[in-house]
Formats: sequence, structure tokens, C-alpha cells
Amino acid sequence: MADDMIRVTYRIECAGDVEALAAKIASDQSTGTFTELPAETEAVRARCAARVEQVMPLKPLTVPSIPDPAGQGPYHRADVTIAYPLEAIGTDVAALMTIAIGGVFAVKGVTGIRVMDIDLPSAWACHPGPQFGIAGSRQLMGVEEGPMIASIIKPSLGLLPDETAAVVADLCAAGVDFIKDDEKLMSPAYSPLEQRIAAIMPVIRDHEQKTGKRVMYAFGISSADPDTMMRNHDLVVEAGGNAAVVNINSIGYGGMTFLRKRSALCLHAHRNGWDILTRHPGLGLEFRAYQKIWRLLGVDQFQINGIQAKYWEPDESFVRSFEDCMTPIFSEADRPLPVVCSGQWGGQAVETYERTGRTLDLMYLGGGGIHGHPMGPAAGVRAIRQAWDAAAEGLSLADKARDHPELAASLAKWG
Amino acid sequence: MADDMIRVTYRIECAGDVEALAAKIASDQSTGTFTELPAETEAVRARCAARVEQVMPLKPLTVPSIPDPAGQGPYHRADVTIAYPLEAIGTDVAALMTIAIGGVFAVKGVTGIRVMDIDLPSAWACHPGPQFGIAGSRQLMGVEEGPMIASIIKPSLGLLPDETAAVVADLCAAGVDFIKDDEKLMSPAYSPLEQRIAAIMPVIRDHEQKTGKRVMYAFGISSADPDTMMRNHDLVVEAGGNAAVVNINSIGYGGMTFLRKRSALCLHAHRNGWDILTRHPGLGLEFRAYQKIWRLLGVDQFQINGIQAKYWEPDESFVRSFEDCMTPIFSEADRPLPVVCSGQWGGQAVETYERTGRTLDLMYLGGGGIHGHPMGPAAGVRAIRQAWDAAAEGLSLADKARDHPELAASLAKWG
Repeated sequence: MADDMIRVTYRIECAGDVEALAAKIASDQSTGTFTELPAETEAVRARCAARVEQVMPLKPLTVPSIPDPAGQGPYHRADVTIAYPLEAIGTDVAALMTIAIGGVFAVKGVTGIRVMDIDLPSAWACHPGPQFGIAGSRQLMGVEEGPMIASIIKPSLGLLPDETAAVVADLCAAGVDFIKDDEKLMSPAYSPLEQRIAAIMPVIRDHEQKTGKRVMYAFGISSADPDTMMRNHDLVVEAGGNAAVVNINSIGYGGMTFLRKRSALCLHAHRNGWDILTRHPGLGLEFRAYQKIWRLLGVDQFQINGIQAKYWEPDESFVRSFEDCMTPIFSEADRPLPVVCSGQWGGQAVETYERTGRTLDLMYLGGGGIHGHPMGPAAGVRAIRQAWDAAAEGLSLADKARDHPELAASLAKWG
Repeated sequence: MADDMIRVTYRIECAGDVEALAAKIASDQSTGTFTELPAETEAVRARCAARVEQVMPLKPLTVPSIPDPAGQGPYHRADVTIAYPLEAIGTDVAALMTIAIGGVFAVKGVTGIRVMDIDLPSAWACHPGPQFGIAGSRQLMGVEEGPMIASIIKPSLGLLPDETAAVVADLCAAGVDFIKDDEKLMSPAYSPLEQRIAAIMPVIRDHEQKTGKRVMYAFGISSADPDTMMRNHDLVVEAGGNAAVVNINSIGYGGMTFLRKRSALCLHAHRNGWDILTRHPGLGLEFRAYQKIWRLLGVDQFQINGIQAKYWEPDESFVRSFEDCMTPIFSEADRPLPVVCSGQWGGQAVETYERTGRTLDLMYLGGGGIHGHPMGPAAGVRAIRQAWDAAAEGLSLADKARDHPELAASLAKWG
């Protein structure tokens, strides 16, 4: 009967006894409250009670994750696995989040708690998962092998639709496989989505007619209103587009579920706001736990930063995220395309390749690294492709740059 | 032109210069990236650039909010207000969350950042806000004055539908104004919503026929799938119900927006999972900022813990939350009914009254405090009403308990 439980592993930290606190969490998140109740019978407990299954002690901390002005350490820690009956939670993401994730952060007495992983039984394979994923993304972009080279409109905000279309034309000419709106661009007054689509799609089509190459353009369709988001989706489809940027945290589980059920687009997820949930190592959620839910709900391409990102995330964390995305939940088909991004200009290609299992199943997204290349964006794209060739050939960037001036120029500017 | 800006106040903490970091955040969240771009013209900046408007220095910290192993303090802090052009964000919650909230937590170099408040221009009054709020809740419950006394089904999980209905009958007989499903109860296999509605609504109707009193029952309709949630909503409406529990974080902005547009029910919000966002005082979001968004999206009744809550939240934080709910955003009508809850049994009534502006415009929710009363649930409800009478009459609980045996029993058990 191992398969009728949902197992969640938490890193729990407290001044007292971690095991006792874990038992309290298991009780609070199922049948218990602060006082004993006559109706909390054995039958009720058997149906719904969560149980602590494993406690793996960790080194205590002297400084608590959450300030504890009146208390004192050491702050004991353990990785604790609690098993919840599928009977009590079912297969709805809202129930999982409420019972096994959200509620635990309210428990008195913890000085830190972090959801490390969620192990879902096969009943959860009912969720749709990615519609396109890695193979579908390759097919839509016509890139049979090697990394998919991508860029983003810069400046991220402020361009008028025709100015944006001019940038798209430059990027198409530069030889990218994929272009996206900045995640911060949805449908502002100065660049309404409908007008942006009308300006950009002809450029994409012209480029296809001239070169045979169909560049994937992901439009920012996010809205907190699912009806608006679906209208945005339909505008893209009607214009012949095939992709969209979705800001998953900003639309929520409801927005994502609604969209995926009706979507014809390849959904490129930006996890903007994820940092609130994960940046403090003693609090929130590991990406490993977080990404499983969004993958099951239908993310096709997942932005996960990269080596030497411009943001706070350490390289090791990115490497783990990449591995998480590449690990099937129920099948290979539920793997999204990992999108390596943030401050990328090619200089990180060799290290990325070496640290992520030497795979080329990825999208590599350069923004400033392409737009800001001293020889222009086409050279920026060539430099990135040269860097990835070096990685696949086992060469250093410096070696490759000797007879590749575009890469040499990148190294001189950003190396 | 003060009214065309969205102003967000952040508490920023870092080892370096707070003001410089604030300027970087304003740039990153509008037109900038990690390298200079020729297309970031003055016209682009004028349209979209965010600006630091105010910097209020605070006392530095010696221990950073996020561990900073390689660095050292002091960690400088300031409350910084950044103004974003409405032109760049518009009125979509997803755009606001992406541009002004989510993204800032990714910035390198901060050791802490917390959104303290959001000041929205009048264009944001386009959002629907509560459909019922305080006045509508009173009307639906037929409670013209005084606090609305509420309870919750206990045990929170595990009861079969007919067992739940028996608890509902007891609570109706006990004299409550409102009953709710535990937030963890939605539609599990052992208690599908449809069967629960079929078991409970006849009890509510019978009680109304016998006594003239219509008890408001809030059913747990939450689902990550808005279509499922709407079917749940419709089941409640068809059975004559008038309220629902919604787990706002577990359905997301998309789920809430979708529901509110179509809802005929009074929406009782549980903020389960909010603690992830707010518990560390140097990180995440203040309730003040958080609640504005959910109120504009349509929350009618907002659970905000209480004095001496069973959860981690300090009393001062609850008191601020209550004040936040009572403060209009655009008008009195956008105020939700504050729901005082968590470990409440009446003993906190006098202090609650004194610290929340001596208002009786609130729902007071007792779970274990009613079910676990030594003289039974009817005595539990009477004890709570006696406690609130004491508050309104300016009496101490001890004084009131002298000739009120139910309150005396509560004080003896939990006081």
C-alpha cells in the first residue's frame, strides 16, 4: 500500500525536540487541534491521520533561520518525512498545497522549515504535464540537435510595438531559434499585446519565407484574469504564433490549470517571485519540490537561471535545478525543456555542459549577451554557438576563440 | 500627476549602500539589464523607468536576514519607496506582482527585502472588491449588531458526510451564526463536496424553519482547477447555500479572479500558506501589502488569527492586520469582515476589543473553544457571547464569569 500515500520531506529547525515537533505538525495538518476532541476517533484517525515516517538528524545551528529574540539555541534540525493518506488529500493541487505545504509554515515553535521534496503516488499522473516539453519544443523550432539558442527583447520595457518588431527582425537575422518578451512585458498601454502581435508576427513569417527557418516567439500573455489570458492566448494562435511566456507565480495554480486545459501554445514558464519562496536556505521550498507541481500543471519550458547568473542564485543551486528538470516524475514526457538564462553570454557554456550531465537538451538564453555584443547581435549569437561547440568538442573557450573572432570579442568584453 | 504612479515601499537590507541598491532595483524592474544597451533611450526611460522616491534609514543589523557566510555586517537597512509608472504596469495583478513584487526578491546583494506596503492609484478601483463585505455578511447572517459568532467542523478532517451533518446540527442548536469546513477539507474521497452539501443543507434549512435563524455555512470549494471550483460553487448555490471557504494562496490570483466574476457566494478567505511569505520579519510581504490585492480581487471575509493564536503570529501583528482590514483602499465597501480565529475561546474577547478600536464588526471563530467546552458546544457559544458582552460593557472576564457559569467553565479550563 506504499502507493496510496503522499510523502513530503521537510527540513525542520527548532530549539526543542524536532521529533516531537514533527509529530505535532503531522497531527495539526490532519485531524488534530489545540485541545482534545471526543469525535477524533480511531476511525477518523485511520482515514486521515498523517504520520512521521523518517527523521534524519542534521547538524544544529547557532543562529536560527527566523529570529528568536526570547529564545536560545542550539537550534536542532532534521529532515523529516511525513506521509499523508491520498484519501485525505486526493489529487487536487489546492488540497496538496493547503494540507501538506502551506499550513506547516504556521506552526508555533519552528525557527525554520523548508519543504525539501514531495513524493507523489501514481494517482497524480492524472495531471496533464507538458504538452510539448523537450521533443515538442525541438520540433516547433526545427532544431533537431544541439542547444536551442534564444534571446529576449531588450530593453525589457518601454519599446513601442514597431520598435519591438525591429528588434525581432535583428534577432531573426542574427540566427536565434527563439525570442521572448521580457517576463515583465504583458499588455501595457504603450505596447498592447494585440498591437505587438500584429507588429511582430509578420517579421517572423517573412523570416520563415526567406530562410525556411521558423523562429519561435513567446509572447507575454499572463494575466491574473484567466479569461483575459485566454483571449491573449487566442490572439497569438490566430496570428500563427506558437508560444507564450507565463509568469506562473503571478497567475497562480488556477490560472495555469485553466490555460493548460485550453492551450495550443508552448508554455515558457518564468518563475518570477520564486525567490521569495526559496532564497533563505532554512525557509520556504526547494526548487525540487516546487517544480514538480508546475510541471504536472503543464510547463513546457522552465527558466532556471544559469552559471554565474546576474541574480543571487549560487551555481550549485542552478545545477540541482537542471537535474530536477531532467528527472522524470512519472515518465520522460513530463520533463520540461530547461531554459538556462540570466547574465548568459556563452562564457558559461563549457561549465554548464560539464556540470549538467553533458546534455545539449536545453535552451540557452542570452539577453544583454547578444544585444550588447561589440560586433552586433548576429556576432553575439555566433559567439554563443561557438561556445557551445567548444563545450561539445571538449575545447576550452580560449582555444575555440583563437579562430573564432566573435567568441574572442565576447571573452574580451565579459570574460 | 501623482495619481499615475504605483508606489511600493520595501524594507531593504544589505552590507553595502542601501540607496545604491534601491536604484539598481528600480532599474532592474523597469528598463535595465546587466550591461548597457544602445536602445535604452531617454524616450524608453521616460515611459517606463521606476524611480526611488524616498529612503528612510533604519538601525543596521548585525545578523543578516539571509545568511551571508562570505560577508560581514553591519547590514544597513532602509524603508525605500519606489514609484512605478502606471503606464508600465497597468491594472493587472499579474503585472503588478511580476514587476513590482516578485522580481525584487531575485536581486543580488540584498540580505533581506520585505514589501511593506503598496499604494495603488485610483485606476485600480476597477477591481471588483468584496461582493458582500461587512454589511452583506451581516445581512446574510441576520446579525444586525454585535460580533458574528462562528465555529468550524472538528475534527477538521476524517468525518463522513453524515457525521459532519450531525456536528452541524449540534452547532446550529448551540446558537452560532456561521459554520465552516476546515480549510483543509475540500472534496476528498471520504467526503465528496456534493455528498457533504446534501447532508448539511437540510440541517441548515430545518434549523431555519424551526427557529427563523439562517446559519451561514461556508463549504470548502477550493480547487486548483477553476472549472472544478465553479462546479463546486454551483453545487452550493443550487442547494441554497450562501458561502464558501476559499484558500486564496492555493487557488492563486487566477482562481480567485475567475471565481469572483461568477460568484453568488460570500467568499470566506483562508490565507493558508501566507506564513511562508511573512513569518521572517526581514523577508517576504507585510500583511498590509498582501491583503490589499486579495481584497481588490473580492475577499468578503478574511481570516487573520487573533490574540494568543495557536500559531506563531505575535499579537501585535494580528492587531495590525485587523487595522489593515478596517482601512479602506478606495472606499468603505472594499473592507472585508475581519475573522478573528485560531485558538479562540472567548478569553481573548476583552483584549481583542480594546486593541482593535472597540469595534464589534468582526467574526469571532471558535473551533476547539466551542467543541471542547466542558458543558458542551451550546455552553461554548454562550461563553463566547458572554465574553463579548463583557468587552462591550467594559467588564473583566472574571467579573462577568461570576454570574455566568459557561464563561466561568471556559476560564477554569483554558484561562
